[in-house]
Amino acid sequence: MRLTMYTDFALRVLLYLGVKESNELSTVQEISDAYGISKNHLTKVTHELGKMGLIETVRGRGGGIRLKLAPSEINVGATIRKTEDDFHLVECFNCSANKCVITPVCRLKNVLHEALEAYFKVLDSYTLADFVENNENLATILLGEKL
Amino acid sequence: MRLTMYTDFALRVLLYLGVKESNELSTVQEISDAYGISKNHLTKVTHELGKMGLIETVRGRGGGIRLKLAPSEINVGATIRKTEDDFHLVECFNCSANKCVITPVCRLKNVLHEALEAYFKVLDSYTLADFVENNENLATILLGEKL
Repeated sequence: MRLTMYTDFALRVLLYLGVKESNELSTVQEISDAYGISKNHLTKVTHELGKMGLIETVRGRGGGIRLKLAPSEINVGATIRKTEDDFHLVECFNCSANKCVITPVCRLKNVLHEALEAYFKVLDSYTLADFVENNENLATILLGEKL
Repeated sequence: MRLTMYTDFALRVLLYLGVKESNELSTVQEISDAYGISKNHLTKVTHELGKMGLIETVRGRGGGIRLKLAPSEINVGATIRKTEDDFHLVECFNCSANKCVITPVCRLKNVLHEALEAYFKVLDSYTLADFVENNENLATILLGEKL
């Protein structure tokens, strides 16, 4: 059971933008350099985060990306719900494709739903602000001498 | 975020064997027929469940498989921990392969661990007995006229 690499990278982009001053712009290249991960992957990730309304792009010379919302407004559970393809733990979670014959009487599916709810209850109780506020060490690692 | 098809099928095998009388044997063919899923997949799944000590095989004519433990002794969380390859929600959950530079100061990883713990806390509170005891509808669907 894993989250997608896409979600992993999306969260890293948000952390990076979250440790910057609110209006300061970042480039995909600098985020790629900071984490040592593929610029191509990050370009796709930032494009999607833009479509989700979490980040915004300033075009032109000196342009870049930044958070569109305050870190305290970016809920972790809500973000992961958007970045993951689905949470179909087992076949019957996908109503349209489910062929499992015991679905109507299966108590296991209820327990798996209960477990997934408990998982999200934790994630829903945090925002990006919880990770970036008063976290100078994170800023130092990601932004280095710029601080 | 999904469980593997392997875990899904393993749980279905345990449910099937759990609704049978304790000493009665089942064949992979009849489980395959009951759920309408591949016998080849189920053969692999039952082999692994045997190695995990959850089911046992009686060989020879009239042989088959049955639970090795009482349903109340088969914990759901423990079973899923065994049947899943891993629970590496993000890269840093895999200590040996992790290259994420912010790991030492990242609070997000702690929150993801907290969420995963909440998920397992639910699963750990159930056993196979909770799904099969007093569930005549499940027995009717899986075993049909045999009841």
